[in-house]
Amino acid sequence: MLLDESASGVYVIAVTPFLPDGAVDMASTDRMVDFYLEAGATGLTVLGIMGEAPKLTGEESAAFVRRILARVAGRVPVIVGASAPGFAQMEGLTKSVMDDGAAGVMIAPPGHLRTDDQIVGYYAQAVEFIGDTPFVVQDFPLVTGVQMSVPVITRIVQDLPTCVCLKHEDWPGLEKISALRKGLDRRVSILCGNGGVFLPEEMARGADGAMTGFAYPEMMVSVVKNHRDGTPERGRDLFDAYLPLARFEQQPGLGLAIRKHVLAKRGVIAHTTQRRPGAGLSPAGVAEVDLLMGRLTQRLAELG
Amino acid sequence: MLLDESASGVYVIAVTPFLPDGAVDMASTDRMVDFYLEAGATGLTVLGIMGEAPKLTGEESAAFVRRILARVAGRVPVIVGASAPGFAQMEGLTKSVMDDGAAGVMIAPPGHLRTDDQIVGYYAQAVEFIGDTPFVVQDFPLVTGVQMSVPVITRIVQDLPTCVCLKHEDWPGLEKISALRKGLDRRVSILCGNGGVFLPEEMARGADGAMTGFAYPEMMVSVVKNHRDGTPERGRDLFDAYLPLARFEQQPGLGLAIRKHVLAKRGVIAHTTQRRPGAGLSPAGVAEVDLLMGRLTQRLAELG
Amino acid sequence: MLLDESASGVYVIAVTPFLPDGAVDMASTDRMVDFYLEAGATGLTVLGIMGEAPKLTGEESAAFVRRILARVAGRVPVIVGASAPGFAQMEGLTKSVMDDGAAGVMIAPPGHLRTDDQIVGYYAQAVEFIGDTPFVVQDFPLVTGVQMSVPVITRIVQDLPTCVCLKHEDWPGLEKISALRKGLDRRVSILCGNGGVFLPEEMARGADGAMTGFAYPEMMVSVVKNHRDGTPERGRDLFDAYLPLARFEQQPGLGLAIRKHVLAKRGVIAHTTQRRPGAGLSPAGVAEVDLLMGRLTQRLAELG
Amino acid sequence: MLLDESASGVYVIAVTPFLPDGAVDMASTDRMVDFYLEAGATGLTVLGIMGEAPKLTGEESAAFVRRILARVAGRVPVIVGASAPGFAQMEGLTKSVMDDGAAGVMIAPPGHLRTDDQIVGYYAQAVEFIGDTPFVVQDFPLVTGVQMSVPVITRIVQDLPTCVCLKHEDWPGLEKISALRKGLDRRVSILCGNGGVFLPEEMARGADGAMTGFAYPEMMVSVVKNHRDGTPERGRDLFDAYLPLARFEQQPGLGLAIRKHVLAKRGVIAHTTQRRPGAGLSPAGVAEVDLLMGRLTQRLAELG
Repeated sequence: MLLDESASGVYVIAVTPFLPDGAVDMASTDRMVDFYLEAGATGLTVLGIMGEAPKLTGEESAAFVRRILARVAGRVPVIVGASAPGFAQMEGLTKSVMDDGAAGVMIAPPGHLRTDDQIVGYYAQAVEFIGDTPFVVQDFPLVTGVQMSVPVITRIVQDLPTCVCLKHEDWPGLEKISALRKGLDRRVSILCGNGGVFLPEEMARGADGAMTGFAYPEMMVSVVKNHRDGTPERGRDLFDAYLPLARFEQQPGLGLAIRKHVLAKRGVIAHTTQRRPGAGLSPAGVAEVDLLMGRLTQRLAELG
Repeated sequence: MLLDESASGVYVIAVTPFLPDGAVDMASTDRMVDFYLEAGATGLTVLGIMGEAPKLTGEESAAFVRRILARVAGRVPVIVGASAPGFAQMEGLTKSVMDDGAAGVMIAPPGHLRTDDQIVGYYAQAVEFIGDTPFVVQDFPLVTGVQMSVPVITRIVQDLPTCVCLKHEDWPGLEKISALRKGLDRRVSILCGNGGVFLPEEMARGADGAMTGFAYPEMMVSVVKNHRDGTPERGRDLFDAYLPLARFEQQPGLGLAIRKHVLAKRGVIAHTTQRRPGAGLSPAGVAEVDLLMGRLTQRLAELG
Repeated sequence: MLLDESASGVYVIAVTPFLPDGAVDMASTDRMVDFYLEAGATGLTVLGIMGEAPKLTGEESAAFVRRILARVAGRVPVIVGASAPGFAQMEGLTKSVMDDGAAGVMIAPPGHLRTDDQIVGYYAQAVEFIGDTPFVVQDFPLVTGVQMSVPVITRIVQDLPTCVCLKHEDWPGLEKISALRKGLDRRVSILCGNGGVFLPEEMARGADGAMTGFAYPEMMVSVVKNHRDGTPERGRDLFDAYLPLARFEQQPGLGLAIRKHVLAKRGVIAHTTQRRPGAGLSPAGVAEVDLLMGRLTQRLAELG
Repeated sequence: MLLDESASGVYVIAVTPFLPDGAVDMASTDRMVDFYLEAGATGLTVLGIMGEAPKLTGEESAAFVRRILARVAGRVPVIVGASAPGFAQMEGLTKSVMDDGAAGVMIAPPGHLRTDDQIVGYYAQAVEFIGDTPFVVQDFPLVTGVQMSVPVITRIVQDLPTCVCLKHEDWPGLEKISALRKGLDRRVSILCGNGGVFLPEEMARGADGAMTGFAYPEMMVSVVKNHRDGTPERGRDLFDAYLPLARFEQQPGLGLAIRKHVLAKRGVIAHTTQRRPGAGLSPAGVAEVDLLMGRLTQRLAELG
């Protein structure tokens, strides 16, 4: 199963669960896969920025991906983050995970790229190394520092047929979706990030779904479904209920700690452990999240 | 009336209204002042980043501040943004607005500052130029690119007695408020930014209020009041109702267009005009805001 | 006398001389103009980054430019740096200096520009404000943070007929000169910066001269002249003799202090004063420059 | 043989030689080691930024380091660049190379660090992972984007006894050497970078030597030796002769291509191949370097 331009729905960005001693927690990994699929995920993305990928050794990354793939067992496509400082590493990781059954890879531009030509050239070079592997362009300027304009993305899509999906995470980004839908000469999948906090508007602009990691993927699944069913207002009601928490999880640097805390409280992963360096939640932060979770329960009850 | 450490409540960051031909719209300016004060603002801040200050000539800036001060007529303190590339300009503007009756100035660190000593040294130098004028430190790394750690702010507060207030706009920033409240050897006012999207949590961490420009200042006034009255949950209910719009207005680069659109629709300012360069709202963007305004009205009705 | 595409030779970037009390030193300004013209300058550029422009008030800038123009008295063209945070300010300054007799303005891109379209769009907007004033594009990524690719510069030159000159200060930048000479559909002047430390190679690649502020403009004049006379090796001999000093003056942040020290020692300006903020030379730094000046004298004597 | 605070002389930053097909060229590696040691190197540093480290896979890095260590055979200490996005990787590489006989590792701060506390905290965490391995702090803001102030370096040296050396590559950096020599409460080795283009002044300020990769290490060896022998002017004469080439090699992004070209022309390495992404020399660039090499030969002959 390879990723293609028709990708839609919710591709959940998976966290990497750790045991308290820092080892990868494989039992939690299995539970997490089950949880995401039961919540309605149409795909998974692993070893992304929020997956603490750079903190894993090459062996750990490979073992983690294999575990995920084994548990998913072909039910949904699995995308693997393959951004690396050098093409040799990107090539090695891509070959390894594709052999193991991944559906494609995701590539973010390195932070030193500036001009349009540099960015387009980078992806052209990457493709020489990853061959015919389908790939996702990760457009996340807040973290990468690289601003990819609509003409740049258009050129990448035009020049490189194996580019099948854009992980859209620019901010603001709504006009960009409209411009891409109008300007691209072939339709690729646009899946949106930013923790889902603009998902209703993104769907209305022409996105195909979400690729992000909010700890309540069921909200995103519902927004996408209601949009498709022609009942976007019902999706918005739910969205609004979750928004206080989604906004809180969207804090840069702290989001992963919040996400792991919620996932642990929901029984998905056993521990909130992050590998170092990583920012944890203070007791006050824990109390803030718990209060928001309580209010969410209450609001969902009101909505019926 | 000079700004001091007891500043609290909601200091609204005022927009600068323009006529369609680009001239400053003085009639709208008057209406805006009235609107903010009726909404419960305890202060105003003008010529900030969202006030399009760098697009005004020196004469226009001075005239605009004078008009604001005349209309406020001493009812609340008025802070003026005085960030400038050189100290000569900062000194000139500060002298001029303080003579006209401003309560203090706000100073953001220039983007090239990196180390702790550079930042602390910059504010020490600034004070040599602005003299005994009370000033607000603007901590807004997303826009300035300068990260001011707790030790840096502590040193500024300790070294410079005329530093009376922090405009807190770091993101994430909640732990920072707690650390500052614990670490500062003298209490200064902490007023929070980021469009109010973390205001309930910020108040709980020890902030004194908000200094930001959300187009519905009454929400922020209510959150602050309910926090003080010991009914923070009531404040949160209102906050949650406004959050879909607040989140939308918080989009960088686009926020001012949204804010001006809402203020115009509410009858506060006559035109949504921005000076160039400035990003306007597309028809789709206008529709998105209008939809959110409609949903807000409905939700407020539900809340009673 | 307006700047046009035929600009060549050495446009010296003038410092702004100050008296010890911080006022602009008009007597030194006159002497400096005479010195630069006697050294063979074919033009002057004032109020550039190294001219401490942002530290002057609007009135001071205008008075300084008028003094320069009066002293130059039409003998060579004078370019004025007009970069400003807003177009209103740029328009005001441009109108004022062009009325006073300047030959054109120089505009650097603001630091937040990233994509090709943003940069090209910025210059297109600027031209709407400065009208038919000839302008120089300042390409100085080390300081502005904006990387202007060859296609970007090509589009600016193509779209905007009043763009007559590129101040080339990219680093590395030699291939860029070759690519521009090959790619531009109309010949504009290319004058190079970086303190002249690549001038022999830049001339060989097709540059028309230098626009930079090395404290020994006679070296740059000689390199350009020898290149034109077909005796580039003679120019290089002189260049090599000055290089230890040129390299030293090229230190970012410290270069202006070194330049003012040398100009003062050479009797051109009366004081080394910089406006704050500004880094001065320590006694050790002064000794280093003096040693290099001594070695230069000796080496020039050897060369005869 | 472990690195300690007495490190001095010239630690050459080694390139990584490749065969035309992109494989590591082990025969050239051996010749390069011999060449550096014959030129008077007192140490070698491998897998640095200029060593194309991020383009090697983990296995290739380990094999390359082992080959270097075998050829050096204990004659001089070998430092290995161990900067990595995560501590797990840094720990793994450090353990591996120290077991193989390296003398220490070099660690650059990751680019997202901003405040003093963040930088100091990063090195404290790193030491928890690399244990008692002696390490070099790499201070190279032009490339890393991280500005390490004198107080920051002082705190690192004070807190972490295994910090034995600073690779000083700030620019400007002379005052920093003086300040560190005055402020540090224990003497660590300071070895300077930037291709040696400030080496005479750096030695006079109190540096212990160079750690950089100029293609003529004999120049750096001579400058250091003459400084120690009390004949710095003789060192400067040689320095001045090499400066036109050193300046040329110091072009960011292009420097490695120039260095490999010179090393190949000098018979040290067999090929100028770089792994992708990497900027090569155009024919015009090759001609420029060859011209400078010719002039150098002539000038050295004049000097006798």
